[in-house]
Amino acid sequence: MVMSLMQSPPAAKTLIDGTEFDYFCGTGYFALHGHPDLIDAACQATQQYGLGPATRTFDHPVLLAVETQAARFFDTDAAHYYVSGYLGNTLLLKGLAPDYDVILIDSESHYSVFDGAAASGKPTVRFAHADPDALRDTLRATLKPGQRPLVITDGIFPTSGRIAPLPAYHQILKDYDQALLCVDDAHATGVLGEKGQGTLEYLGLQGEGCYSSGTLSKALGGFGGIIAGSDSFIKKIALKGASPVPLGAAAASATALSLLMQQPHLRQTLWDNARYAKAAFRTMGFTDIPDTPVPFFCLSGGGLDYKTLQEELHKQGRAVLYIPEGGYTEVPAGGAIRIAIFSTHTRAQIDCLVAAVSVLI
Amino acid sequence: MVMSLMQSPPAAKTLIDGTEFDYFCGTGYFALHGHPDLIDAACQATQQYGLGPATRTFDHPVLLAVETQAARFFDTDAAHYYVSGYLGNTLLLKGLAPDYDVILIDSESHYSVFDGAAASGKPTVRFAHADPDALRDTLRATLKPGQRPLVITDGIFPTSGRIAPLPAYHQILKDYDQALLCVDDAHATGVLGEKGQGTLEYLGLQGEGCYSSGTLSKALGGFGGIIAGSDSFIKKIALKGASPVPLGAAAASATALSLLMQQPHLRQTLWDNARYAKAAFRTMGFTDIPDTPVPFFCLSGGGLDYKTLQEELHKQGRAVLYIPEGGYTEVPAGGAIRIAIFSTHTRAQIDCLVAAVSVLI
Repeated sequence: MVMSLMQSPPAAKTLIDGTEFDYFCGTGYFALHGHPDLIDAACQATQQYGLGPATRTFDHPVLLAVETQAARFFDTDAAHYYVSGYLGNTLLLKGLAPDYDVILIDSESHYSVFDGAAASGKPTVRFAHADPDALRDTLRATLKPGQRPLVITDGIFPTSGRIAPLPAYHQILKDYDQALLCVDDAHATGVLGEKGQGTLEYLGLQGEGCYSSGTLSKALGGFGGIIAGSDSFIKKIALKGASPVPLGAAAASATALSLLMQQPHLRQTLWDNARYAKAAFRTMGFTDIPDTPVPFFCLSGGGLDYKTLQEELHKQGRAVLYIPEGGYTEVPAGGAIRIAIFSTHTRAQIDCLVAAVSVLI
Repeated sequence: MVMSLMQSPPAAKTLIDGTEFDYFCGTGYFALHGHPDLIDAACQATQQYGLGPATRTFDHPVLLAVETQAARFFDTDAAHYYVSGYLGNTLLLKGLAPDYDVILIDSESHYSVFDGAAASGKPTVRFAHADPDALRDTLRATLKPGQRPLVITDGIFPTSGRIAPLPAYHQILKDYDQALLCVDDAHATGVLGEKGQGTLEYLGLQGEGCYSSGTLSKALGGFGGIIAGSDSFIKKIALKGASPVPLGAAAASATALSLLMQQPHLRQTLWDNARYAKAAFRTMGFTDIPDTPVPFFCLSGGGLDYKTLQEELHKQGRAVLYIPEGGYTEVPAGGAIRIAIFSTHTRAQIDCLVAAVSVLI
């Protein structure tokens, strides 16, 4: 089978196999991967400094600039910029290891959360997906007296777009001394919260005992993982022994952080588009779609044939992602179609997608 | 403390804090991070396709080109190109999980090897660093009847430049049915073997039961991890759920693979430079330095003050890396200076470094 080829940057309209598609895939929610400012920054840094410093034996102006902009973006003293968002949970869970005894992990968390828990060497127990009661029961059944729990979960789950019930988790954890709450915020960085700081900002949970890891490779259009916090915390979690991010992508990431700080209206546009699309699909009968500003969601259930639906939409020049059951985390029985909304989608594009789906189901 | 800033691509001569240094740090053994062909490829791909596709929902010509070139480079059917070399051991150990029961791991392996072993969920036992007898004893003490061992180690250790005694490990493993041998080849990719395929090629161990993960971000001057092998093996180990490599760095990586295939003499020059430098330092009394083509080594032992030595060399405009005891894997007691040799170093540069060290110790 020949896979389809993407031939332009991912954007509201994306060139695939020579045809311009209405593109509702992926994680580039502001279409920044193809933004001219990011491209210029990447090429300029690459011309001046080459592909990368190979190691961080010496500090590097381009990498420092990302950490400086990230600390501004997250309103923190410092930030650590590392090779891949995938490693963020490993950094949090290894770095915080002296401060907790047992990990409690949402059973549908991203692969990288489980890998990070394993790397920490700490006992790890799963609790039922997005279920505060299950967390409460698991804590009671698991913790020995004096043991300190760390709860970890995706902030936004990557298929459903569901936000983890963090306020309920936070409330439950008040019964435990020195409890920690960690969030893999890959899909929320730049997207949720007034300042785009992520799920903890959106839910008003920033503060002691709450931590998150983010990425600059999705909504920000750049590349690499980011963790922000106090100087002492950042020293504690810093990654050893991985190559630094390529300088072009790093320069683009710093530019993206700056751009989103200067243009907060982009986030408002994204939220408005997301609510508009989600309302339409809920009206169509997909009532499980959460009414939140999260810019993606899935169509699932009802015994529909989502693989065929995806193929029909593709024939019409609309790209959406089909995920088979078991093909990723938290995919509902029968598979799902994941729809991503960008700040740059026009209402007409969204209306056409909604109309096309309503005819096909 | 203000860190020193690198202001040019890493090369035989590198601009640091406004001064041109004779540069003996890092892992850019062919100085490819600043090679004009790589820079051009990176900028061209970024201009055409943007920073990245965000996800690999659709296939991408630039990412496919890396995998095609890598399969040619390694003489295999296929290759898997993923976000960071750091994750290579996780991919090998999770992907091969159905095929082994117990992991035996060199006690001084890179952090990423331990993280990968943890992520696999398999029982893991350490054996003494680079010690075949210890491996034999640990196998006998650990394995229950019928259990299949997997041995994993760095191919070249990142501080000492020591090559793991893989032929001895391979011989020992002949006593066990279906034993596997895995190598983190980050420092050997492009460097060891007639074709630059790495430690297994260099030692004549390519074949059934032997696997390695490599990187394109060190000697190759690009970015990202690479694993080559048969189609079925590559399907088995492919990473789910991480962002793809930035397209600029990916295009540069494909160019680097092609360049090293077209110019095998670069590797001969590197080996010659490395042997030349190592012979001089052995003559000076650092007799532990291995007589191999590995392009880096460490100065250690003898009760010398390596921190001061590094500072004195820095004042003279020669950059070498000081690693304190406990600051990285397999650092000898008293700390060490790591010296990296590039194919682009002149003999005069190497002679001056040797002379400077001999005066200072």
